[in-house]
Amino acid sequence: MSKVNRLKEDLIKTGEFSRTPPKRIERYGQLDPKKGITRLAGTAESWKIRDYAVEHMKEAGLKVKIDKVGNIFGHKEGAKTNKGTVMFGSHLDSVINGGMFDGALGVFGAVEAVRRMNDAGFENERPLEVVVFTGEEGSAFSPALLGSSVLVGELSVDEALSRKNDMGQTLAEALENIGYKGSFTRSLDDVEYFVEMHIEQGPILDKEGISVGIVESISGIAWIMVTILGEENHAGTTPMRMRKDALVAASDIISFINRRASEMVEQLGAATVGTVGKLNVFPNGTNIVPGRVEMGIDIRDVIPKNMESLKNEALQAMPDIAKKYGVDIHTALPLMHLPATLSDRVVNMIDNSARQVGVVAKRMNSGAGHDSQNMTEKVKAGMIFVPSVNGISHAPLEWTNWEDIEKGTQVLTQTVKNLSRL
Amino acid sequence: MSKVNRLKEDLIKTGEFSRTPPKRIERYGQLDPKKGITRLAGTAESWKIRDYAVEHMKEAGLKVKIDKVGNIFGHKEGAKTNKGTVMFGSHLDSVINGGMFDGALGVFGAVEAVRRMNDAGFENERPLEVVVFTGEEGSAFSPALLGSSVLVGELSVDEALSRKNDMGQTLAEALENIGYKGSFTRSLDDVEYFVEMHIEQGPILDKEGISVGIVESISGIAWIMVTILGEENHAGTTPMRMRKDALVAASDIISFINRRASEMVEQLGAATVGTVGKLNVFPNGTNIVPGRVEMGIDIRDVIPKNMESLKNEALQAMPDIAKKYGVDIHTALPLMHLPATLSDRVVNMIDNSARQVGVVAKRMNSGAGHDSQNMTEKVKAGMIFVPSVNGISHAPLEWTNWEDIEKGTQVLTQTVKNLSRL
Repeated sequence: MSKVNRLKEDLIKTGEFSRTPPKRIERYGQLDPKKGITRLAGTAESWKIRDYAVEHMKEAGLKVKIDKVGNIFGHKEGAKTNKGTVMFGSHLDSVINGGMFDGALGVFGAVEAVRRMNDAGFENERPLEVVVFTGEEGSAFSPALLGSSVLVGELSVDEALSRKNDMGQTLAEALENIGYKGSFTRSLDDVEYFVEMHIEQGPILDKEGISVGIVESISGIAWIMVTILGEENHAGTTPMRMRKDALVAASDIISFINRRASEMVEQLGAATVGTVGKLNVFPNGTNIVPGRVEMGIDIRDVIPKNMESLKNEALQAMPDIAKKYGVDIHTALPLMHLPATLSDRVVNMIDNSARQVGVVAKRMNSGAGHDSQNMTEKVKAGMIFVPSVNGISHAPLEWTNWEDIEKGTQVLTQTVKNLSRL
Repeated sequence: MSKVNRLKEDLIKTGEFSRTPPKRIERYGQLDPKKGITRLAGTAESWKIRDYAVEHMKEAGLKVKIDKVGNIFGHKEGAKTNKGTVMFGSHLDSVINGGMFDGALGVFGAVEAVRRMNDAGFENERPLEVVVFTGEEGSAFSPALLGSSVLVGELSVDEALSRKNDMGQTLAEALENIGYKGSFTRSLDDVEYFVEMHIEQGPILDKEGISVGIVESISGIAWIMVTILGEENHAGTTPMRMRKDALVAASDIISFINRRASEMVEQLGAATVGTVGKLNVFPNGTNIVPGRVEMGIDIRDVIPKNMESLKNEALQAMPDIAKKYGVDIHTALPLMHLPATLSDRVVNMIDNSARQVGVVAKRMNSGAGHDSQNMTEKVKAGMIFVPSVNGISHAPLEWTNWEDIEKGTQVLTQTVKNLSRL
């Protein structure tokens, strides 16, 4: 079987046996049963794909160990064992009714890289280790990036194991059910590098027609939840100047966020994004002046200062908007992660490796979160992106072309080879 | 019993036996069972208040007739029967969990006016007729202003009787159940004047501390329902310049409507109001660029040209906004009523009558719709407003002070007296 077909088969097979089941569809409403993938941590679907991955890791000559939170490690000794391990991989869990590439590509791409090195008789000096992180999406057990958070010591094993899914089952119980509650403890002391291949989940590579992205930074994220309290009134009998319209005040906030984020991109060349994605109006009748609006603002940037600055500008704009429209504005900040910078050395190595295998690659940032943002705290980490058609992911229509997957896998393989001999 | 106490007793008693019943509360959610009034056309509550009104009309010497759609007429002959009748009254139905004054004040105020004329031994030259219109609110049977629409010939009796409430009952069945499906046909050929006392349902009289308003015009209303189709995307991975954000486009429309309506008020001294009262975002997640927004715009003015002009400006602004944000905007116009001008002669007569009885009155417009806007098409019609505390109506907190009710009733009584001798 050709190399690309081997990886394609892994992805299609594991996609096929993880279709969103009918009971999930009933539960979550409008899901497409034909295309969507639902593979929440601890479910039977998660078990199946883990067994498939472990089987293929073993076939590739890896020695598999499972840690206490279900992270899977497939180890291959190196010729010079005094040098730190090169770890590479991603996650196998999905969001509800997501796509077949998010996570799985990085795991099976890593297994394929090992197979290609085996096929070529490549001798790695450093140890190699394929990793599968538990619960990256956070769709069953919060927080997101659970497995890598435990690995880097940000979350304790006990805390992780006691997290419950929406059926009230703990992670410990779920892992025991599927036979993935191991006893191994993986220290990162002997690991020097980490590489993750992942779909971009955004439109940039697809729009620019480039097959491979090299991630330099992963955006930080700040959420501002806003409640605007105005005065509910009759839309016919309340003169304009006697109104306290919560939605008119909200529209100023929406415009502000969009305008300032766009200006930061244009004036500073920043990667800032600012979004009001959620907005609820009360009582929400065409003939009633809105008395209350609740909204959620999402701000991200790879540069901490930019993220902080847009967040602060937004917070500082609120009192003026409140005064202008005679409303009260309350804010809460439920989510805040700083941006993560990936290792220059790994970024450069991916760049060189792409050139070696003749693949055009583009340096870029990641707007979405990844396990790499945890790994970069402890080891030298890098990420390889492949395009998402139309930028779609976390949806049944998520797609990446097989040619791009092949190019990404070539770059991953070459990067691991190069790192293993550094 | 003093005059004010007689009317107060009518309103309190009929309010007491029309409290929103528990089954209604279960059905419609968050309703306050202590204060709210629910008296939908055709229900037992509607029957009770109708019987109470008819009993008191008869006691006041009126000859009561019921027409085919349940409108109630209480007639008193005049000394000179060749002159057209003076009709006065309002409606007894309420919205779901509304207040005790909306409608009922105009009916029992009219009965009280007759009682006061009787007490004073006043001899009316023209015939007098107290009227109770069926289904003004449209809360049980659409359209709103049902009874007066039939009376002025805008809606046929058959069409009205075939309308169904949300239990699937026709108006004919509902009226038969409560014994108010009459056989009378009231022509307006022998009616010359119509006067309606009503609560303002807005904040103007209350804020200005004036007890009586004289309505010159009733606002027209135009609704624009807007659907904005953008592109749903990941808020983290979609760069600002690649977005088609439906909510950002919506915020421009909200600002536009608010700004232009306010400018028309300030620059033209117009009574324009423009409101976006309803707005739904899809999929409505903080971390997702909104792909679709649905919104409802409410535009009102007493001058047809102003209403038309704001409506057209809004419609003309849409293509530019669509182009600016790369979205599609679709509009529909489901509701459009032209403004209604009330009779100069009746307006002046109310003004003179207020002066006669020593009540300060203010000429104003009505932002809400009333049966008077139908009546003005066929007879010389006028309206007397009394204040709504804090402008609240259609809610349990609807309130009007008894002193204001007394002043309104004095002006109504004097106006009917004067008209009856014109």
